[in-house]
Amino acid sequence: MARIFILRIGHRVFRDSRVTTHVCLTARALGADGVIIADREDKVVESTIRDVTNRFGGPFDVQSGKPWKQAIREWRAIGGRIVHLTAYGLPLPKMLPEILDAKGDVLVIVGSEKMPGEIFKVADWNVSVTNQPMSEVAALAIFLDWFRQHREFEHEFSKAQVQIVPSRSGKKIQQLPPE
Amino acid sequence: MARIFILRIGHRVFRDSRVTTHVCLTARALGADGVIIADREDKVVESTIRDVTNRFGGPFDVQSGKPWKQAIREWRAIGGRIVHLTAYGLPLPKMLPEILDAKGDVLVIVGSEKMPGEIFKVADWNVSVTNQPMSEVAALAIFLDWFRQHREFEHEFSKAQVQIVPSRSGKKIQQLPPE
Repeated sequence: MARIFILRIGHRVFRDSRVTTHVCLTARALGADGVIIADREDKVVESTIRDVTNRFGGPFDVQSGKPWKQAIREWRAIGGRIVHLTAYGLPLPKMLPEILDAKGDVLVIVGSEKMPGEIFKVADWNVSVTNQPMSEVAALAIFLDWFRQHREFEHEFSKAQVQIVPSRSGKKIQQLPPE
Repeated sequence: MARIFILRIGHRVFRDSRVTTHVCLTARALGADGVIIADREDKVVESTIRDVTNRFGGPFDVQSGKPWKQAIREWRAIGGRIVHLTAYGLPLPKMLPEILDAKGDVLVIVGSEKMPGEIFKVADWNVSVTNQPMSEVAALAIFLDWFRQHREFEHEFSKAQVQIVPSRSGKKIQQLPPE
């Protein structure tokens, strides 16, 4: 199966830590392989996400501090394709068939309000999830749901210590035996 | 068409203002009718969202400060149904047909980590978008996309001053004549 990584650009420590945490949780829950937080180290976000992965399972990779140009260069070097989620791009329903046909590993770039203009040029696809001012967390969620063709609901996590038991009206969580 | 409002519970001014702004932008972009931020007034979030609505179109309603119990009581009084998005709930793919069959107006409750236990009882449906630790912004996005059966990509906004022109590799925005 194609590997999916998220490249989070424009992260500022403290100010963006919660929204970037949402980006990481979304990526993990929807079956992506990992998140690279570009340019700035954020050990707090990293450790929050590692803790979730230790408890609820993985594998899921999170790293921070790598310059975005380097992350893109390395992704290109292994033959990966690049999707940039932006309200200015072409609509997801129109672009998805082309992206799925390409079949390779995909790096999904999500940013804050001000993205470097070069990102629009370096991406294979500039994709919009509605052409409205939008949360990048929401855009990422819908992109991953469509890209994985809703299979995230069956995604199996490995080495989880606990798991939620779906319930009609309560909170059920169970311990799991070591794998 | 069924009306959709979001009830945001557990909002704390400053600490949650950015995430709640993401909730509001997601709701608007995906064609919901409005957001009620429960219990605490947040004029900054309200004015950010009103500004977006003035520029990019509406209608979209945002209000803050109403106690959550009152919001739910008023929603019930007009015959509306209630969906609570929670990682502990039953999976969206399983619950959606029942929710769509009910046909009424829907209040979608999204909260922060600690939700009052009563919410699980008061909701008609406790629905999970994956049973994993999850961003409420992401869960809301996927719920609305499925609930609206992807029609949000054709949603028409009224009285917009500007609109984004979808583009393969740039940023295009155009002024609109007054309606």
